[in-house]
Amino acid sequence: MSELKAKILGEVTDELIAIELSLRENLKPWAALAGEVAGHLLFSGGKRLRPLLMILAARVCGSDRDDLSRYAVLFEYLHAATLIHDDLVDEAVMRRGQPAAHAVYGAPEAVLTGDFILARCLSITAETRNFAIIDEICGITEAMSQGEIQQLYNKGRMDLSEAEYLSVIERKTAVLLKGACVTGAYLAEHSEAGVAAMGRYGWHIGMAFQMADDLLDYTSDAASLGKEPGADLREGKLTLPVIYALSKADADEKARMEAIMSDPDFTVDAFAELVESLRRLGGIGYTERCAREHVAKAKESLALFPESREKELLLLVGDYSLERTS
Amino acid sequence: MSELKAKILGEVTDELIAIELSLRENLKPWAALAGEVAGHLLFSGGKRLRPLLMILAARVCGSDRDDLSRYAVLFEYLHAATLIHDDLVDEAVMRRGQPAAHAVYGAPEAVLTGDFILARCLSITAETRNFAIIDEICGITEAMSQGEIQQLYNKGRMDLSEAEYLSVIERKTAVLLKGACVTGAYLAEHSEAGVAAMGRYGWHIGMAFQMADDLLDYTSDAASLGKEPGADLREGKLTLPVIYALSKADADEKARMEAIMSDPDFTVDAFAELVESLRRLGGIGYTERCAREHVAKAKESLALFPESREKELLLLVGDYSLERTS
Repeated sequence: MSELKAKILGEVTDELIAIELSLRENLKPWAALAGEVAGHLLFSGGKRLRPLLMILAARVCGSDRDDLSRYAVLFEYLHAATLIHDDLVDEAVMRRGQPAAHAVYGAPEAVLTGDFILARCLSITAETRNFAIIDEICGITEAMSQGEIQQLYNKGRMDLSEAEYLSVIERKTAVLLKGACVTGAYLAEHSEAGVAAMGRYGWHIGMAFQMADDLLDYTSDAASLGKEPGADLREGKLTLPVIYALSKADADEKARMEAIMSDPDFTVDAFAELVESLRRLGGIGYTERCAREHVAKAKESLALFPESREKELLLLVGDYSLERTS
Repeated sequence: MSELKAKILGEVTDELIAIELSLRENLKPWAALAGEVAGHLLFSGGKRLRPLLMILAARVCGSDRDDLSRYAVLFEYLHAATLIHDDLVDEAVMRRGQPAAHAVYGAPEAVLTGDFILARCLSITAETRNFAIIDEICGITEAMSQGEIQQLYNKGRMDLSEAEYLSVIERKTAVLLKGACVTGAYLAEHSEAGVAAMGRYGWHIGMAFQMADDLLDYTSDAASLGKEPGADLREGKLTLPVIYALSKADADEKARMEAIMSDPDFTVDAFAELVESLRRLGGIGYTERCAREHVAKAKESLALFPESREKELLLLVGDYSLERTS
């Protein structure tokens, strides 16, 4: 574990325990039926980034409520519901170093458990009795499902533009992190300006996290990734390092890269050659720069709020998004 | 079409047109992405029973609102989202005489489109700005997904009890019809007694509809059913006609029935023999009696409300549920 990650985790032990308890508490009445399949993913070592962001955002906005973890878990449920369906759609066999839920329990179980977890998420949302939060979660749910459909339609397309890529990662990642931060601000009953600033923070952090995630697929090894590198390519997903590199390649190099990417059974050597092209053509460097810019903007968005331990943690989360190795 | 169905439909032309317009209006902004897959099921000749019940319930409760169809469609969306995922889970190839969505567009498309339609349903729910309705829809979404999981776990079980069967059909059908009626009463701002009475009406109608549906799988032919009869058995689903018949069969007959049912490739002759056993052992008759009792109780629940054209229609819907042939 990186020093930065250890530092952040050391500071949020209480919050993490409250989140774990609440995640389990909420599934209890359904343990026998859906708990096992839901638990497989929910308790497989996720970072709890989304509920943590909600709690920290609420604190930065001045809330001293003691019921924040009760609502925060809705963001972990929403995330888990999406992952379960996505892994099924992408036919991904591994997730966080474990077999994916559909691979262990079957596709029907994965479809229905995803539906069930989403339903739990919505019930918790309704419990906030706050229409601004309810609208936010409904909007996120719509945006995420559209983002996934869009990504499905984009599969195998070699001509995906940077704008199309940005639109997909916004919907599949940034809106949820933004939603977590905005909900924290709403629960703290902060002003409109505070809600907007928290929204910008979460959105930029989300964009940075997804870009860093997409980079890892080319720069990390199987052990730290918890799945085979090159998975995005095998699933026909073009991400920013590739899109940028293709735009800078000459006709020959472009043809060579496309030939590698079009073969779902590319060899380790072919993949290494592709990664080398991504580096040489600047795809890796460009993506790193974009992610860094998003983190800088995320940090700027917090200027509005007074200094606090929790604000310091949100700033560290920004740095962490850039240095992740898994 | 039966005389009764024609009579009901003739009386609700305006409502049906408003529902169709609203169903299309609500999908418009997403037409290119999800509209086609969603539209495949949504515009394949569904009865619009659920939105109709909501509108009629609101009218019986005294509402003269002109925006009822806007909210009513949420029940068609919720129904459609469930059907799309169910057909996938059950590997059903036909629905309403057409290939099922996953068979036409693929499993990933069916998973994500179901998610998208559910998200639309929730956004419309939030637009009611009524917490009682929001709670009702959250409860329905949870109950339905649990019912489906329960049904999945029950697959192939020859010892399913009547109580277990009732619990499944309550969750998969009755709670949604109840929810439509209850929501109508809430939108009409009727008293608690009115909401409860409408809930009872919808619940009993739902139980009757599902029992009638389960009967059709044994008493109807492929042409009027829009799919092969015996589909429930092929999917390993025991329904009331079978559960009752098994409870009345002697050891030999029980063994013979179980042998037929355990073979997913049973012949037309074996199926005919099974249906004959269901008749002789009273499974068909018992299920008909149960459905009739539910309709009688549904009708009794309406005693509270003054006579009106719409109340007359709700009473007719009860009769219709019993005489359906498709």
